[in-house]
Amino acid sequence: MNDAARPWPVYFDCDTGIDDSMALAFLLASPCIDLVGVGTVSGNVSAAQAARNTLDLLHLAGRDDVPVAVGAHDPLAGTFAGGVPWIHGQNGIGEVALPPAPRQAEPCDAADLLIDLARKHGDTLSIVTVGPTTNIAMALKRDPDLPRRIRRVTTMGGAALVPGNISAVAEANLGNDPEAAAALIAADWDIMLVPLDITLENRLYDRDREALLAAPSALVRAIGAMLDIYFDYYVPLYGERSCALHDPLAAAIATGDIRATRAPAVDIVVDTTRGPGRGQTICDLRGQRLGPVDRPGVRTRVALETNRPFGPILLDRLIGFVPAAAIR
Amino acid sequence: MNDAARPWPVYFDCDTGIDDSMALAFLLASPCIDLVGVGTVSGNVSAAQAARNTLDLLHLAGRDDVPVAVGAHDPLAGTFAGGVPWIHGQNGIGEVALPPAPRQAEPCDAADLLIDLARKHGDTLSIVTVGPTTNIAMALKRDPDLPRRIRRVTTMGGAALVPGNISAVAEANLGNDPEAAAALIAADWDIMLVPLDITLENRLYDRDREALLAAPSALVRAIGAMLDIYFDYYVPLYGERSCALHDPLAAAIATGDIRATRAPAVDIVVDTTRGPGRGQTICDLRGQRLGPVDRPGVRTRVALETNRPFGPILLDRLIGFVPAAAIR
Repeated sequence: MNDAARPWPVYFDCDTGIDDSMALAFLLASPCIDLVGVGTVSGNVSAAQAARNTLDLLHLAGRDDVPVAVGAHDPLAGTFAGGVPWIHGQNGIGEVALPPAPRQAEPCDAADLLIDLARKHGDTLSIVTVGPTTNIAMALKRDPDLPRRIRRVTTMGGAALVPGNISAVAEANLGNDPEAAAALIAADWDIMLVPLDITLENRLYDRDREALLAAPSALVRAIGAMLDIYFDYYVPLYGERSCALHDPLAAAIATGDIRATRAPAVDIVVDTTRGPGRGQTICDLRGQRLGPVDRPGVRTRVALETNRPFGPILLDRLIGFVPAAAIR
Repeated sequence: MNDAARPWPVYFDCDTGIDDSMALAFLLASPCIDLVGVGTVSGNVSAAQAARNTLDLLHLAGRDDVPVAVGAHDPLAGTFAGGVPWIHGQNGIGEVALPPAPRQAEPCDAADLLIDLARKHGDTLSIVTVGPTTNIAMALKRDPDLPRRIRRVTTMGGAALVPGNISAVAEANLGNDPEAAAALIAADWDIMLVPLDITLENRLYDRDREALLAAPSALVRAIGAMLDIYFDYYVPLYGERSCALHDPLAAAIATGDIRATRAPAVDIVVDTTRGPGRGQTICDLRGQRLGPVDRPGVRTRVALETNRPFGPILLDRLIGFVPAAAIR
C-alpha cells in the first residue's frame, strides 16, 4: 500500500451525544481514515460523561485500542451549563445502556492527546470537531506550532445564512464557547466549517431508524435505539419524526464521502461580545451572488451546498459496518 | 368620499439618494396615500443635501406644498462619515442638475415636523423610513407618546438571512445608526421591516430606465437620468446594469401595492455593541421552518417574501404619473 492509499489519521473531538455517536460510528466504518484518538468536551453532556459514552461505543465496535481523553469541563470564559438532556437524554445517548468498556480514559487531557498525536503523525493528522472547540483552543495555547502539524480541520458549527439554535444567530457548538471558537478560526490552518445551513438539510427518518435497529453491528443497533428520543425532539422543527445529521455530516465531509460543492473561502469572525450576537460565526458572504468567490489568502471555508443527500450514504455505511472484533 | 376611501397621511423620512427619489416619486404617484411631510437625515448624502434634493424633486412634481424639514446630520453615537458618492453621485442624485425649488426647508427639524404632523393627523399618520432612523429616535425621545399617535411604521432596513451591505451582517440604513435603529424597534408600534432579503430581489433594468427617460413627467425623466450611475454600481453585484429597489419597495409595501406574503411577527434586536456584529438587525427566525409563526404580542414584522415582482408595478406607476401642476 503506497502512502496515498494509506488511511489518513483523524483526531475526533466530541461531546457524545447522539449525533456524535453517529459521527463516531461513521468514522469507524470509513476505510479511508484511521481514527487515532478521541477527545471529549462538555456540550451535549459533560466531558466526563462524553468520554464514558465514547469508551463504551468504541468497546461495542471492538476498538478499545483508540485512546480517549477527557477534555475541558468548562468553556474558556464561563461554566458548563449542564447540557441538553431534553435532546440527547440524561446520559447523552438517549438513555440507552451500553455494555461498559473495561478500560478508562487516558491519564492526559484531550488537548495534550491532540498535541501528542499531531507530533506522532507528522503533518498528516486531521482534526474533526463536533462539539465546542475548547480543547482545540487549549492545545493551540499550549503548542502555538500545532497548526503547521495539522493537515486540516473540519468543524461542525455555526449558522451562516440560517437562524442559530441556541440564540437567533448562534449555533450550539461554537456558541457555547465563543472564545474557543474564535481561537480555532483565527489559527493558521485550513478549516472547513460545516454549519446548520447544510446539516439541517440532511436527515434520517423512522424507516432508516428501523434499518439501523436490524443492523449486524451492536454499535449500530445501539445508535438505532438512541434515535428514538432524538427523533421526538425534532418533531416541532420538521413536523415529523426524523433528525438532522449535524455531526455525521461533518465527519462525512472530512472523509470525502460528501463533497462541499459550494464552500467559499471567506473571512469568518466569531462574536465574542456580551451583546445579542454573542457566539455568532459571522461569515462574510458579501459578493457571492454570482457564484462562489474565494477571498485570496483566506483558509477558512464555510460549506453551503453539498453534492448529494447524505442520509442514504450514512445508512449504507452503518448497516454495512461489520467490525472484525466487535461485539455483535 | 368616506373615511375609509380618503388617502391616508404619510410622513416620509429619507436620505435622498437615487432610490429615495424613486420612493418619493412612487409615493407622490400613489392615489391611496397623501404625503404630508418629509424629513431628511444623513445617509447616502448629508441631511442638508438630502433636503435640497427633496425640495427640488417635489418642485418638479408641482408639490411645493409638502413641508420638508432637515433632520439629524450625525447618528446618535458618532459622526456622519460623508455618504456614498460612488453609489449615488456627489450630489446624491447621480449628478443630475434639477431646476432649483423656489422655497427652503421648514424652520423646525425633522423630529419636530414628525411630532407636529402626528398630532395634527390624530391616529392616522403612517411613517415610512428609508434612511437611518435618527430623526425617529429623536422624536421618540422628545415625545414618548408618539407611538400611540402613529398608525404604523414601514422601514427599509436590515438583513435577516442574507449578508449585509456595510458589513458582513449590517445593512446601511440601520447599521449607520444602530442606537437609533434600536430605539425605533423598541418603541411600541407596528413596524414592518423591509430588509435586503427582498429589496435585492426586486430590480429595474436598462430597458426600464429607457422607458423612464421617455415619461411624461419631468420628475420621472430625472429619475431615469439618475439611474445611469446607479446601474453602474450594481454591475459587480448582479453581473449586468440594473439596480435593486430598496427604498421604493418599502414605499410600495406601505401603500399596499406590494403585499408581504411572509412577514412573521418576531423579536428583532439591533446589535449596538462595538463588536463585529454592530448594526445587525437580529431577527429571531427560529421555529419558522414549517411556515410563518407570529410570536404573540410582538409588533415587529420582517418581510421575507412578497406577492409579486415590484419592478413592473413601479415602472407603470411612474410612467403613468402626470402631476396636475408639475413641470412637464
